[in-house]
Amino acid sequence: TANKRLLVLPGDGIGPEVMREVRRVIDWMDRRRHVSFALEEGMVGGAALEATGSPCPDQTVERALAADAVLFGSVGGPKWDSLPFDKRPELGILRLRKELGLFANLRPAVVLDPLVDASSLKPDVVRGLDLMIVRETTGGIYFGEPRGVETMPNGQRRGVDTEVYTEEEIARVARVAFDLARRRSNRLTSVEKANVMQSGRLWRAVVSEVGKNEFPDVELSHMYADNCAMQLANRPKQFDVILAGNLFGDVLSDLAAALTGSLGMLPSATLGAPDSSGRRHALYEPIHGSAPDIAGKGIANPCAQMLSLAMLLRWSFGMEEDAKMIETAVEKVLAGGLRTADIMGPGTARVGTSVMGDAVLREL
Amino acid sequence: TANKRLLVLPGDGIGPEVMREVRRVIDWMDRRRHVSFALEEGMVGGAALEATGSPCPDQTVERALAADAVLFGSVGGPKWDSLPFDKRPELGILRLRKELGLFANLRPAVVLDPLVDASSLKPDVVRGLDLMIVRETTGGIYFGEPRGVETMPNGQRRGVDTEVYTEEEIARVARVAFDLARRRSNRLTSVEKANVMQSGRLWRAVVSEVGKNEFPDVELSHMYADNCAMQLANRPKQFDVILAGNLFGDVLSDLAAALTGSLGMLPSATLGAPDSSGRRHALYEPIHGSAPDIAGKGIANPCAQMLSLAMLLRWSFGMEEDAKMIETAVEKVLAGGLRTADIMGPGTARVGTSVMGDAVLREL
Ligand SMILES: CC(C)[C@H](C(=O)O)[C@@H](O)C(=O)O
Ligand SMILES: CC(C)[C@H](C(=O)O)[C@@H](O)C(=O)O
Repeated sequence: TANKRLLVLPGDGIGPEVMREVRRVIDWMDRRRHVSFALEEGMVGGAALEATGSPCPDQTVERALAADAVLFGSVGGPKWDSLPFDKRPELGILRLRKELGLFANLRPAVVLDPLVDASSLKPDVVRGLDLMIVRETTGGIYFGEPRGVETMPNGQRRGVDTEVYTEEEIARVARVAFDLARRRSNRLTSVEKANVMQSGRLWRAVVSEVGKNEFPDVELSHMYADNCAMQLANRPKQFDVILAGNLFGDVLSDLAAALTGSLGMLPSATLGAPDSSGRRHALYEPIHGSAPDIAGKGIANPCAQMLSLAMLLRWSFGMEEDAKMIETAVEKVLAGGLRTADIMGPGTARVGTSVMGDAVLREL
Repeated sequence: TANKRLLVLPGDGIGPEVMREVRRVIDWMDRRRHVSFALEEGMVGGAALEATGSPCPDQTVERALAADAVLFGSVGGPKWDSLPFDKRPELGILRLRKELGLFANLRPAVVLDPLVDASSLKPDVVRGLDLMIVRETTGGIYFGEPRGVETMPNGQRRGVDTEVYTEEEIARVARVAFDLARRRSNRLTSVEKANVMQSGRLWRAVVSEVGKNEFPDVELSHMYADNCAMQLANRPKQFDVILAGNLFGDVLSDLAAALTGSLGMLPSATLGAPDSSGRRHALYEPIHGSAPDIAGKGIANPCAQMLSLAMLLRWSFGMEEDAKMIETAVEKVLAGGLRTADIMGPGTARVGTSVMGDAVLREL
């Protein structure tokens, strides 16, 4: 029965073409695994803006609220770069996070063995890297009020943003991170600038309290954001799970992704709070952007979008076995030597988006 | 004549021991180059806290205001980590920046040829790296009001910081960056999150205006902070000068430093606005911290502190020739194979702080 309501939002740039390959995986699951999804497709980003005048139409929000999970592509492109704030494609993702209450962004940074050489770091530094960044995504400076650009009495402009975190906001995302650490190597590094920022001071205090009261078995350490960036660049394997607020999490998770050298391989999940029946809103997206420079050429790497589906199966539907099947299929294709342009290396064969999709389906 | 008033603030941890080697260079200049400094030594950080109850005593601020340049060591250590905000050693540097109006932090990230292998990045990625980050240091979220941790009516705590930038603050640090770009490869990358932050939106607008009106010959580009972190990790050599606000500049400059793999080699300058006679306050410090784990062992690398003196001679006294002499002496010592523990590599000889100092003096 079609009890799994899935909203697919391809978005802009390479979004639609990588999503096409994922649809093939979903079809395959339908036929072979007898898992049936009630699948809807919606609009977001620049595509939605052109069609409806809004980068995140109300209809998309309503459908997302009604769905069990959202599979998101990517948004944005030079075409819309000079639009005012409330028209920008990025608003698509920001509004969805806020309206669905998606406060915990899970960003794995993993280096698969066949891709060690794709990294700009020395092989020894990144071989076997497997860390997870948990980033808060509905609070902090992204949404705090007051915010705006105003003209002062002397005629000068002044830009203001407010970073604000409540105890409750910090505690709930900390719980997600502690819980994840427990299922991994039991180590959590919490990141802020408590030496400079007041919200950072509260962040450190609350994370410590949650750890002490609810997760005394997890080894907790604290690190300043600047030091964390250094440590990530020099010894990334020291980390297991990293917890950070919205802004530091944005920068550090992109940094961690870049260290792997294979952005085109990395998925992410953004989760809301579970309700009394355990159901939670969730959105899954590759971390690569819309890559307008290669859009429409059929050369984009569909793996991150496929692995986002795997995360979706695992986190939203508890389908660990199916998630693993997809992950294993992708790994086997890489081990077999096929590569899209972004992860090419010596001795490998370059293929396009759909051939990569074919290969994953064959492995499945 | 002793017309160059220099305030030396060794601070905590390895600060005093690396400063000792620099004092030898200053003595040598006195004798050989007939440059005479009126040299005072002051207290800052944990050392000042122990002696006076304040991490940045008024006397230190007064002396810094009277000096032509400040040579700063480093502050902080585990001993003072749990103190309240207003007692923390870091306040030493924060207060000096604010009271002296040191708004432009210049942070070079340079990979010297003999140290290419010290980096965690592949040699090809970092060989010849030479970029400069200009970070704003008296504004933004470090000082904006309101700030604090308060208890809300419902009993929950709430932490608040305010990021605020005026047009004038952005323009003056932008001018420093543009001016530097002109003396280098004529390219400037300005970094913010204009897609999310209002202060970032103003930042981008003002930097564009300054560029268009005053530096039309400098090639200006804009980059989001998350993307900049990625690009630094993957292709750092694409950059010449990077301009960023206080918070992003903190994280990105430490990241850039880490990429070099030789933190113990990197100096920095923080400059105020020139007055009508062209005189400006300025503070010079190595970017490595107080490194409490190795303090007092005589193994710290004195090079960054020595190179900070070189920057001081160049920027505060226009003594380009003397600055170059020190830089060349340090490079020759490295080329000769001597290394402190932090930058050891195969085929090099490990020496302590004072032997490294001896070697530099011998080259001079
Ligand atoms: C597109 C942008 C608003 C967004 C963010 O800053 O959160 C992106 O960088 C991300 O990390 O998902
Ligand atoms: C010590 C700390 C307050 C300081 C900062 O955040 O500015 C340091 O990280 C730096 O970069 O000089």
